Amino acid sequence: MNDIIEKLTIYFKEFPGIGERQARRFVYFLLQKNPNFTNQLIKNITELKNSVHQCPSCFLFFQGDGQNLCPNCRNPKAERDMLLIVEKDVDYESVKKSGTYKGLYFILGGLVPIVNKETPYYIRINELLKIVEKRAKEDNLKEVILALAISPEGEQTDIYLRQKLSPLEKEYNFKIVSLGRGLSTGTELEYSDGQTIKNALENRH
Amino acid sequence: MNDIIEKLTIYFKEFPGIGERQARRFVYFLLQKNPNFTNQLIKNITELKNSVHQCPSCFLFFQGDGQNLCPNCRNPKAERDMLLIVEKDVDYESVKKSGTYKGLYFILGGLVPIVNKETPYYIRINELLKIVEKRAKEDNLKEVILALAISPEGEQTDIYLRQKLSPLEKEYNFKIVSLGRGLSTGTELEYSDGQTIKNALENRH
Amino acid sequence: MNDIIEKLTIYFKEFPGIGERQARRFVYFLLQKNPNFTNQLIKNITELKNSVHQCPSCFLFFQGDGQNLCPNCRNPKAERDMLLIVEKDVDYESVKKSGTYKGLYFILGGLVPIVNKETPYYIRINELLKIVEKRAKEDNLKEVILALAISPEGEQTDIYLRQKLSPLEKEYNFKIVSLGRGLSTGTELEYSDGQTIKNALENRH
Amino acid sequence: MNDIIEKLTIYFKEFPGIGERQARRFVYFLLQKNPNFTNQLIKNITELKNSVHQCPSCFLFFQGDGQNLCPNCRNPKAERDMLLIVEKDVDYESVKKSGTYKGLYFILGGLVPIVNKETPYYIRINELLKIVEKRAKEDNLKEVILALAISPEGEQTDIYLRQKLSPLEKEYNFKIVSLGRGLSTGTELEYSDGQTIKNALENRH
Repeated sequence: MNDIIEKLTIYFKEFPGIGERQARRFVYFLLQKNPNFTNQLIKNITELKNSVHQCPSCFLFFQGDGQNLCPNCRNPKAERDMLLIVEKDVDYESVKKSGTYKGLYFILGGLVPIVNKETPYYIRINELLKIVEKRAKEDNLKEVILALAISPEGEQTDIYLRQKLSPLEKEYNFKIVSLGRGLSTGTELEYSDGQTIKNALENRH
Repeated sequence: MNDIIEKLTIYFKEFPGIGERQARRFVYFLLQKNPNFTNQLIKNITELKNSVHQCPSCFLFFQGDGQNLCPNCRNPKAERDMLLIVEKDVDYESVKKSGTYKGLYFILGGLVPIVNKETPYYIRINELLKIVEKRAKEDNLKEVILALAISPEGEQTDIYLRQKLSPLEKEYNFKIVSLGRGLSTGTELEYSDGQTIKNALENRH
Repeated sequence: MNDIIEKLTIYFKEFPGIGERQARRFVYFLLQKNPNFTNQLIKNITELKNSVHQCPSCFLFFQGDGQNLCPNCRNPKAERDMLLIVEKDVDYESVKKSGTYKGLYFILGGLVPIVNKETPYYIRINELLKIVEKRAKEDNLKEVILALAISPEGEQTDIYLRQKLSPLEKEYNFKIVSLGRGLSTGTELEYSDGQTIKNALENRH
Repeated sequence: MNDIIEKLTIYFKEFPGIGERQARRFVYFLLQKNPNFTNQLIKNITELKNSVHQCPSCFLFFQGDGQNLCPNCRNPKAERDMLLIVEKDVDYESVKKSGTYKGLYFILGGLVPIVNKETPYYIRINELLKIVEKRAKEDNLKEVILALAISPEGEQTDIYLRQKLSPLEKEYNFKIVSLGRGLSTGTELEYSDGQTIKNALENRH
């Protein structure tokens, strides 16, 4: 009995941060909403999958409007000699919102895991190398900025990307840099780890 | 730009317990899943709305299988002289899972708010009165059990239902009772409020 | 170096709920306070240990004022035919504050552990048996109320006390009861465990 | 009754991070400990206040051993041309533990509040100016490092100290720097504020 309530609960449990109990509350929430709400929800999910595409150059998801490239990659005012690499779309949104970066982006799609070298993972390394070479040839690329989380996986990925990009760096003479480390908003020294204080001291100015 | 990402975010923000940031993560989660996942999700939501109905007697949501009444109301072994009233479907599930109640249920659909007497609200009071009278006439109803939250709204609703049921209680001579109050699993006296200790003392045995 | 800062940190780490970091903050807090604060603190700790005694009848800590028994045990208005047993002083304070109990108390001093029957523990079982017999003989004891936490240890202790008190119960014909169980303030059925719902159903009224 | 329990509770409530309930638990904790524990606690608090002094040069608390200056200020290997300013002793401990700074320290004793210019506050500004001048004259001071929290008060204090130190900076030609800002350990871009990303981009390398 009530197979469909159980089945839909299982789907909602796959949503990020959602456990059994909240997944079930989602199902009862949908049951209690009028049909118009679920119809609109379904319509929007369908439209999302149909109209949102990944940019073939930076791999950002964006709502296609007959264009091939995303608005960033098409933007004639973008500084095309800078490329900033982030893990995922929401990281891109954070950097975009800060309003200080005017160059191009690249969405890596994941991080290199550290637990086990055999752990399968996926990052767009070949796509990245292709784009970096293209920018170097066509746009006189000056700087590749690695903007990854300060976590074991983020630092592993930073090292990995520097290795992979190293031949292109030598051939085309651009710089590879990482985001500055130090104290961030809200940091108190009392609760800071040694590595953060070390970075903050090295980057003092 | 990216209207559809914003629009779907707004829909997910209506889900219980979901804020702006998590709603947006849901959208990117769906973007990254393969089309099969979203197709199945949409299929299950559609099936939920099409195949799950409310029982016309107790107002429980259940997956219809050509039957009119829900499995509880149809169950020939149910003790038809007891009626337990809960606020919502998940409360029904909790009572069902405890395995100690064998009678019939009624889903009230809400609680009486206390903030303001003018606050609009909806509970199935007329449906309840009709069902109680029917059970009294047809099944020799002996006991109505109010199983509501121990919160200001729950207690307000308890009082309200007792008032509304009072004429039927006199006419048909059934009992109206509320769930027992006292210490619940995990309670420590150190952290208990005076009302709970008072109830626990009164209900000692 | 700074031995005394480390040493005092270790003492504060023994305080309930205090970890390494907060213990250290306590030490720096004392360093920064003027000498008057620490002098008063020390004076109060000394006075606490000198002037607060345990009642020889109920084992409550109270500030002695030349009297032998605590104010509860001395109170001529206390209903001396009822004895309520709690684990510790703060539990007594909670019951006292609820304002509904007018009888005598007994502080057990601990709970019976369940992990391992060999685990050493201390509860005042012999003192309890002596007091219960005294009350039965002198004050016509009618009721012993077990007011323990609803936890595995609390329930284990409830069973243990009933066994130990059983011979006296038969000889002097008093009742042994436990605090009522059911829904407590703030409880929602959705989040309640089966045992609590079972108790709430059994104690409905 | 029980005045002393209430009085000592009030003293413990002044301890950092301690509320009414936990303060009371501290009192009952002391009641239950044997007298040896409270005697040792009192002895250590007394020794703390008697043997720990503030260094007259950097204002660090340290256990005096017949010496006037703290071990840092006395250390012949310390790089005497660098002075790092922190708010409080535990901040000093964090920097010390990071193991990357070999110069001298100064404990400011507080931060400049921002709420209201009339808010009274205390920081050791005159002592700081005196020490900076002394270092400039005697030790050829090259760098003053402001190591304050990244909070409104911390940033206000940073600005205030730069103003106050400015005349000495010009006269003696040392540098005033602040700790580097950017991503700190554990930072994810998704959850970073715009200011932190801006700093991380500016300090990229």
